[in-house]
Amino acid sequence: MPSSFFFRLTATDGAARLGEIATPHGVVHTPAFMPVGTQAAIKGVHHDDVRAAGTEILLGNTYHLMLRPSAERVAALGGLHAFMRWPYPILTDSGGFQVMSLANLRKVAEEGVTFRSHLDGAMIALTPERAVEVQILLGSDIAMQLDECVRLPAERSEIERAMQLSLRWAERCKRAFEKAALGQALFGIVQGGDDQNLREASARALAAISFDGYALGGLAVGETQDVMLKVVAETAPMLPADKPRYLMGVGTPADILEAVARGIDMFDCVMPTRNGRHGLAFTRFGPINIKNAHHAEDPRPLDAESRCPAARDFSRAYLHHLFRAGEALGGTLLSIVNLYYYQDVMVGARAAIAAGRFADYLAQSRAQWAAKSDRQES
Amino acid sequence: MPSSFFFRLTATDGAARLGEIATPHGVVHTPAFMPVGTQAAIKGVHHDDVRAAGTEILLGNTYHLMLRPSAERVAALGGLHAFMRWPYPILTDSGGFQVMSLANLRKVAEEGVTFRSHLDGAMIALTPERAVEVQILLGSDIAMQLDECVRLPAERSEIERAMQLSLRWAERCKRAFEKAALGQALFGIVQGGDDQNLREASARALAAISFDGYALGGLAVGETQDVMLKVVAETAPMLPADKPRYLMGVGTPADILEAVARGIDMFDCVMPTRNGRHGLAFTRFGPINIKNAHHAEDPRPLDAESRCPAARDFSRAYLHHLFRAGEALGGTLLSIVNLYYYQDVMVGARAAIAAGRFADYLAQSRAQWAAKSDRQES
Repeated sequence: MPSSFFFRLTATDGAARLGEIATPHGVVHTPAFMPVGTQAAIKGVHHDDVRAAGTEILLGNTYHLMLRPSAERVAALGGLHAFMRWPYPILTDSGGFQVMSLANLRKVAEEGVTFRSHLDGAMIALTPERAVEVQILLGSDIAMQLDECVRLPAERSEIERAMQLSLRWAERCKRAFEKAALGQALFGIVQGGDDQNLREASARALAAISFDGYALGGLAVGETQDVMLKVVAETAPMLPADKPRYLMGVGTPADILEAVARGIDMFDCVMPTRNGRHGLAFTRFGPINIKNAHHAEDPRPLDAESRCPAARDFSRAYLHHLFRAGEALGGTLLSIVNLYYYQDVMVGARAAIAAGRFADYLAQSRAQWAAKSDRQES
Repeated sequence: MPSSFFFRLTATDGAARLGEIATPHGVVHTPAFMPVGTQAAIKGVHHDDVRAAGTEILLGNTYHLMLRPSAERVAALGGLHAFMRWPYPILTDSGGFQVMSLANLRKVAEEGVTFRSHLDGAMIALTPERAVEVQILLGSDIAMQLDECVRLPAERSEIERAMQLSLRWAERCKRAFEKAALGQALFGIVQGGDDQNLREASARALAAISFDGYALGGLAVGETQDVMLKVVAETAPMLPADKPRYLMGVGTPADILEAVARGIDMFDCVMPTRNGRHGLAFTRFGPINIKNAHHAEDPRPLDAESRCPAARDFSRAYLHHLFRAGEALGGTLLSIVNLYYYQDVMVGARAAIAAGRFADYLAQSRAQWAAKSDRQES
């Protein structure tokens, strides 16, 4: 087990990058997809299935965990890895994004953000120092700086204010992080909305502070895919080439491959599990809405050639029945199908970059998804 | 694979019996516990976990399956085993009990029962012949006669009326079942409430019709455990010794062992999964309510020596957290824990009968559950 964080870039193919992140809990191969374990669990899916899908790293949510069961309790129980029995790498976010999207009476000030817990109404202060402290208590392999994320579209002045505040918080997080255990890593977060000058200023200032990795925040928050990919394409090259790059909260398999093509190494998204619970399967053939009536008598599995048992072993008719009957097993099975598929997409991306044929892989994937050969979704 | 139904009694120990039921989908060792797969799924638990727990036979509910997705659709998809991908033995009930407990505007007549579907309000007729037809379409290994089950306490005249009607329906089911595939079996159901004269009359009349096995119905419907066990103790000896005996809808591990001691071979109950979803774990140490606050910081697993990975691998603190956080994984894990424990109780019962020490096993189990050594439940 490596004792400290380390990133190694092993190949490039155009802007696409192949790499390895060493952490105290094992190696992560990049480009990597991180399923979201919001409350120290991947919703509806057993850890063993998450792992079997090919998951090398999970994301945990600082906001949720600090409220329940609390970072101190998790620390007393041996840290997040031991608490949830996931002995592999974990990245925790800083809580900033959830404060913005979930908390009431949120108030952002220079010192930090104060908010009312959505659970019990308690007023809670989250400063850059506390965000880092919580993540050290959780013991994640990769911690994120506290930032302020602005929903798009927004005024440039508002985007700039939040970006500058996030930079000052980045410096405070870096200082606070000096108490972290050997091997823990801290990532900075580039803000700046859809304004490329602000993105560039943010990226250069963060690089000057020097982090173990760099995230692009404030995307997938209401903008179009075109805008997002433009920001990614123009910002990624400004980040240090020898550190991992993480596009937060993205996205569909197509979003992910397009961002890999533009130099991104890490992704997280709730889509595989959230959409799975709602009856949407991501497959080689594009998305399949299993709740549609035409699946009711279809004896075919979702994908007879899948590596995923749930995609091979159960008929579409049976999966359809589980959703119609309100059986939670349906959501679990489709979540598993989706986790496998997302990881398969990443395996394919890594193999393609290694072979210098990532552009072909992207084009073939696009064509396959668009062919609708198997979905009959009308 | 045996081509026809067969029961072999291999040992007895007092009134307790050890046996094997051969079915077209494999052998069931008795005493056996059948988890309930109401809608062609064990709620919240993957089939592979149900099987790994030691489950040899499942119960499916005719009432639910005839309404959704319909027996005809299941038949078109290859029968219930293929539809739900459970290639092992399945017993289906007749629908009578659910009609009583779930349907609206239920009307019982000589011909059968008519009721309004709880799903779409459609009026549906369930006759003895239709109940058998549905179960033949589902293709279960063991089908049950249609009966009328009366909640206790009830007037003797009402219990007798329902018992006599159930006997006439038993004859009609037997005739209708002649069309069943080779190897399918049909069980009769003894009714008679808590009146031993009625129970005896029902048992003798059913034996005269001759079934592949005999169930005790109309228990676990409101009476005390004492009353239930008295009926079991007095009725079981009146049933043919060379056929399996099934106590429907029972019960706790204690109920089951007490009934085994009185000559019962088969059981079904929703308790392992329903109670699991509500935070109650059945363990060697007695029931543990994982939602109780004192588990919040307890790093111990539910049972470090369990054969069940979920009972060994996750701390009580983590399981407690999952329930507090509303994560469905908590209910899934406790359901798995409970399914393993129920099957372990049955494995222990079979071993004890084989060794001629069932009375000791029962006494030890009672003492262990009562010791509360590990539950601190107050």
